[in-house]
Amino acid sequence: MSDNRDILLTEVALRDGSHAIGHQYTVEQVTEVARALNDAGVPYIEVAHGDGLAGSSEQYGRSLTDEMKLIEAAVSVCDQTKVAVLLIPGIGTMNELKQAAELGAKMARIATHVTEADVSPQHINLAKELGMETVGFLMMSHMAPVDKLVEQAKLMESYGADTVYVVDSAGALLPNEVRERIRALRQSLTVNIGFHAHNNLSLAMANTLAAIEEGATRIDGSVRCLGAGAGNTQTEVLVAVLERMGLNSGVDLYKMMDLAENIVAPILTQPQEITRDSLVMGYAGVYSSFLLHSQRAAKQFNVDSRDILIELGKRKVVGGQEDMIIDVAAEIANKQNSLKV
Amino acid sequence: MSDNRDILLTEVALRDGSHAIGHQYTVEQVTEVARALNDAGVPYIEVAHGDGLAGSSEQYGRSLTDEMKLIEAAVSVCDQTKVAVLLIPGIGTMNELKQAAELGAKMARIATHVTEADVSPQHINLAKELGMETVGFLMMSHMAPVDKLVEQAKLMESYGADTVYVVDSAGALLPNEVRERIRALRQSLTVNIGFHAHNNLSLAMANTLAAIEEGATRIDGSVRCLGAGAGNTQTEVLVAVLERMGLNSGVDLYKMMDLAENIVAPILTQPQEITRDSLVMGYAGVYSSFLLHSQRAAKQFNVDSRDILIELGKRKVVGGQEDMIIDVAAEIANKQNSLKV
Repeated sequence: MSDNRDILLTEVALRDGSHAIGHQYTVEQVTEVARALNDAGVPYIEVAHGDGLAGSSEQYGRSLTDEMKLIEAAVSVCDQTKVAVLLIPGIGTMNELKQAAELGAKMARIATHVTEADVSPQHINLAKELGMETVGFLMMSHMAPVDKLVEQAKLMESYGADTVYVVDSAGALLPNEVRERIRALRQSLTVNIGFHAHNNLSLAMANTLAAIEEGATRIDGSVRCLGAGAGNTQTEVLVAVLERMGLNSGVDLYKMMDLAENIVAPILTQPQEITRDSLVMGYAGVYSSFLLHSQRAAKQFNVDSRDILIELGKRKVVGGQEDMIIDVAAEIANKQNSLKV
Repeated sequence: MSDNRDILLTEVALRDGSHAIGHQYTVEQVTEVARALNDAGVPYIEVAHGDGLAGSSEQYGRSLTDEMKLIEAAVSVCDQTKVAVLLIPGIGTMNELKQAAELGAKMARIATHVTEADVSPQHINLAKELGMETVGFLMMSHMAPVDKLVEQAKLMESYGADTVYVVDSAGALLPNEVRERIRALRQSLTVNIGFHAHNNLSLAMANTLAAIEEGATRIDGSVRCLGAGAGNTQTEVLVAVLERMGLNSGVDLYKMMDLAENIVAPILTQPQEITRDSLVMGYAGVYSSFLLHSQRAAKQFNVDSRDILIELGKRKVVGGQEDMIIDVAAEIANKQNSLKV
């Protein structure tokens, strides 16, 4: 792997992208995609269920293929690219991390809600013991004020994370908001800073460039936007933009374009675009898992599901608090009824 | 129309978007889309062939419906929205402009290559005589250095244009390049500054925000990205982003989301995404019309069509110079063969 890369890319189409195809990856698909990414010189590729190791479940969606088989397949064809795994403590456990490391995964990305870094130290420690490179992955970063984000990032650094990521899970951040977050981390941390975007507000590339300008050197992308919601920063496009900016990603642009067009696009059951649903999630700043619940509650209370989602976003509701959706729907209905009187 | 708008949007799905559906708009589709845009409070919508008035031809693609019928249909359902037309001198003539004005078009956008503003004064004059608001539209703005762009914009201002647009026809500009262009125009012109983006490098929204930050107040968007190449700045998403930024576009967000999802998306034969072809055009900075020619020449000379397009971009080849494609292909083939010896 070339050593003079300005930006180190992590390709997430085989993890975040799993959401976009209902977690239906086959061993053959993962093998083919991983081989092509390795050949194009992508430094890291993440392989796991969309919600990380052990995400396959009734709640998060069942994987067609055991993710360990997918990790094994990716490792088997990568001689320069390192395979990464994502683990959300509470969904995945130490056991899965050990298994992934045994299969050859070289990077562990430990993901927590932006205010809950303190659930990650054991997993970061274990990953280090296993000889893995470690990443702290602060999800829903738009929900915390900058000083809180810095505090949580410093926790992850203190646990031994080699890199800390600002993760815009809902694609809700504006470029200036990314800028101030990365700048603050840059001033407070000594480890690498990373950024993971979603494109729900069509700002994935804008936010990624803002992050890079402020000093982020680890960037996530997904080929052909294959990720949750409207997808992530489109990797092959990012490689082109970085070239235009004179930044070296060490990735072969033509090979990336070709694998996007010939290998990844055919996997998608339908092209990624910014639909009403993904736009609402970005605008409201909520998890995609709230969408269906809110649409059901909207029907029940005869209100607009978007009003529910926006109110949930204002209240900074997080995963696991889905019961609040009914409360919010009822409140909106009450307010509307009282206005009509 | 509300008078306190910070940004005045022009919706181009019924003109630039015509490229995305092979110029196959029906009167019914245009009527339905225009009615919904009017109802959502969009101030301007542009209606014409993708290459402007009289673009329907063997060379540029034949329209299914006479564009004058489409303009008439749009005007008939707009009681607050103004209908705009685009005219490229050399493709459209004074006659079509008069016809459009008689049918009720209220804005004329006169489009020239970025270095050829001097072909526009008669058309701008006529539009003013016809009582239309006038826009000078400098296409392929990435091809001129900033001082040349300023010179050409000042020409259009001197001809009487009420607004001058920086048009990133190939989606090739980076945010900083947009920034310096809009800033320079802001310093040199007294008329409104506009910006028209394409999303070939996934930078349409980034560039649009950069333009707004530097003082552009007229912005083009296309619902559901319906435009040439990878499409334009997605209007309904832009409305959401402007709201998040505290800027008033005067457009109803929910209505825009709904018309995008329920009326415009079903018109598209396939969703807009950034494909290899659109990415190459943005990266090389060339017109989409070069694509097919380059692919043919690539086959003939056994070279990569991307190398041809990138070289054409470097040479700043413009429409009408398609014969240079063969020369470039031959040169690349020669170079490759001499390297093999």
